[in-house]
Amino acid sequence: MTNWTDYYATRASRMKASEIRELLKLLDQPDIISFAGGIPDPNLFPVDLIAKTCKGILDDKAQAMAALQYAVSEGYLPLRQWLAEYMGKLGVTCTPENILITSGSQQGLDFLGKLFISPNDTVLTAWPTYLGALQAFNSYEANYDILPGAGSNRTPESYRAGGKPKPKFGYVMPEFQNPTGTSLTEKDRIALLDAAEAMDLPLIEDSAYEHLRYDGVRAKPIIALAAERAGGIDNAKVIYCGTFSKSIVPALRIGWIVAPKELIKKLVLVNQSSHLHVATLNQMIMHRIASTVFEPHTKAINKIYKERRDAMLKSLAAHMPAGVTWTKPEGGMFVWMTLPTNIEGAELLRRAIEEARIAFVPGAAFHPDRSGNNTIRLSFSLIEPAVIDEGIKRLGALLRGA
Amino acid sequence: MTNWTDYYATRASRMKASEIRELLKLLDQPDIISFAGGIPDPNLFPVDLIAKTCKGILDDKAQAMAALQYAVSEGYLPLRQWLAEYMGKLGVTCTPENILITSGSQQGLDFLGKLFISPNDTVLTAWPTYLGALQAFNSYEANYDILPGAGSNRTPESYRAGGKPKPKFGYVMPEFQNPTGTSLTEKDRIALLDAAEAMDLPLIEDSAYEHLRYDGVRAKPIIALAAERAGGIDNAKVIYCGTFSKSIVPALRIGWIVAPKELIKKLVLVNQSSHLHVATLNQMIMHRIASTVFEPHTKAINKIYKERRDAMLKSLAAHMPAGVTWTKPEGGMFVWMTLPTNIEGAELLRRAIEEARIAFVPGAAFHPDRSGNNTIRLSFSLIEPAVIDEGIKRLGALLRGA
Repeated sequence: MTNWTDYYATRASRMKASEIRELLKLLDQPDIISFAGGIPDPNLFPVDLIAKTCKGILDDKAQAMAALQYAVSEGYLPLRQWLAEYMGKLGVTCTPENILITSGSQQGLDFLGKLFISPNDTVLTAWPTYLGALQAFNSYEANYDILPGAGSNRTPESYRAGGKPKPKFGYVMPEFQNPTGTSLTEKDRIALLDAAEAMDLPLIEDSAYEHLRYDGVRAKPIIALAAERAGGIDNAKVIYCGTFSKSIVPALRIGWIVAPKELIKKLVLVNQSSHLHVATLNQMIMHRIASTVFEPHTKAINKIYKERRDAMLKSLAAHMPAGVTWTKPEGGMFVWMTLPTNIEGAELLRRAIEEARIAFVPGAAFHPDRSGNNTIRLSFSLIEPAVIDEGIKRLGALLRGA
Repeated sequence: MTNWTDYYATRASRMKASEIRELLKLLDQPDIISFAGGIPDPNLFPVDLIAKTCKGILDDKAQAMAALQYAVSEGYLPLRQWLAEYMGKLGVTCTPENILITSGSQQGLDFLGKLFISPNDTVLTAWPTYLGALQAFNSYEANYDILPGAGSNRTPESYRAGGKPKPKFGYVMPEFQNPTGTSLTEKDRIALLDAAEAMDLPLIEDSAYEHLRYDGVRAKPIIALAAERAGGIDNAKVIYCGTFSKSIVPALRIGWIVAPKELIKKLVLVNQSSHLHVATLNQMIMHRIASTVFEPHTKAINKIYKERRDAMLKSLAAHMPAGVTWTKPEGGMFVWMTLPTNIEGAELLRRAIEEARIAFVPGAAFHPDRSGNNTIRLSFSLIEPAVIDEGIKRLGALLRGA
């Protein structure tokens, strides 16, 4: 009989295991200081409150039956109502009809890829960009080019030059981007919107780290700026993806999409055919947690994450040799480091694990063209300040010897 | 600016709202007897046990942190171990490496569509077939033709006749099919496997209703028969989709795929790019519930569902006019009715709601070519026997007058 691979759709060839992810799976040894994982600290999860909330729902027979039965694909209405209010506080005027609940923001990216990307369509993205977005869009056979705006040398005109097909959408993470940790200023955002309008280009705004701000001033979400220009969100050409994975907990798998009503209606069908709906119990728990403690909880965890970011920046300043530069993020979980061009991130990782018992993520994985060989991503979210200092000291010594 | 629809991928044109589903959304009025929804009775959910189990996990700090943190895309290992044992009892010898946890079996079908279907590939399916499978495969622009085997007049040779492209896979629901309620005998299954082998055709076996058997004898899953022929599951060309949605509860959204290891590895990547993983808390709850009460619980609910099935078959025999026929399922949730050819199911539904205050699902939606106009699906899963009798009596009166 024929091989399985002969039956795969062409898109399956773009779905590849990340070598780095496989390597990092092996990193559970306790003596390794890992700056690799970009995940929240589970010690900061509001476990007691989740336990109490969950008990409250399941101990009430009527609520429990609703929590465990099939539900509408749009998502749990009280959660969508809370999110509409929350988005309003960020400057995004919208209603529950503008919101779809997804299984994390990753599923939002998958749904948007499914809806928009035909094979070999071009997606514009910052370079580097979020690896999970590339994985989601790869599943629909996207090609990539560089998004105009901050840090890019591209202009709207430059895309028309070669007679290339019109890009399908731009993907941008304007707040504490994964992997660089940097944000777009309001001026950057306006310039990006100008460029997008000139190119007739919809934008996907992924704001997974939005609430993790430790200092500096928040700029309005791009979708808010676009809605102001367009006379309301339903006329704006921006789609926003959010998640509770970093603010509350990841494994209830609750994210959301904010978009014009017309798009949400279509995305509801995508949700229905993809997995019917997000687990109702999880949506009910998240609604109660968010509406009870979102602000004080995020304030409390930001205090801890800020200490870790400060520790990392202080340690970097103390221990890095000349020729190494890094970002100074105002929030999020990451610092992005640029090494001398003769140092290769993946090779450095192999040596770092073996010789210095530290780990990080080489930067090439975040570049659609696998460039950025001399970059690495460091996460400070999981580590106490003293351990951060020890790890960065070891990295400095390794680089001095490299 | 250009319309959103101009940005959609071509596959988006296949994603359409079901008129029937929209109509049925309006059916929450308490005086309607609805045979429409194919969903489990929430009064039969093991609510107390789920509440207790959930509390047990969340009250233990270490377990709670694991339940709420990011996890591997393969799924929770103890659940996959339990499922490997469970599948073994059904005759399917496999290991946890043959199993992927999905967000319901619907997500399993979506993942398989994503992996296998290129635009305009042909999928073979029984006619009628599960509507959700058509929705999942439509998202990848499948075309459909009739699967050979029981109830079909097609043979492997008949596909080669017109020089048509080779079909991509066959989709079959051999146990208490949604919508007909009928099952394939072991002889049917062997004939189907013979035809599939002759056509070099992989099969997807969707067994969502597998454990809801009220009488009759269970035949081996098709994947078990294929594994016996091929010398093990890793050489078989059958993929099995299961779910806890009907046996335990739907809204924790836990299903699974059983397949050769090689395919599971690829499907793990599909899962990762689609939503990272199924909510860990939900997997942990389901593992404990399943490993504690799966057998006694399904035995208890089958007793109730059997009474309802018996009541429906008895009422149908008592109240249906001549010229109407229906299936006699040994399990599941559905009876499939064939009306005289001059009666149209959708029109009958409109009259049934208005004149008789009853509802059901017209059969055309289950046919890829929208044929089957004179068929309807009746579900007995949600209704007490006395109410079933009243509803079927009203349906009989309506049909006599039609």
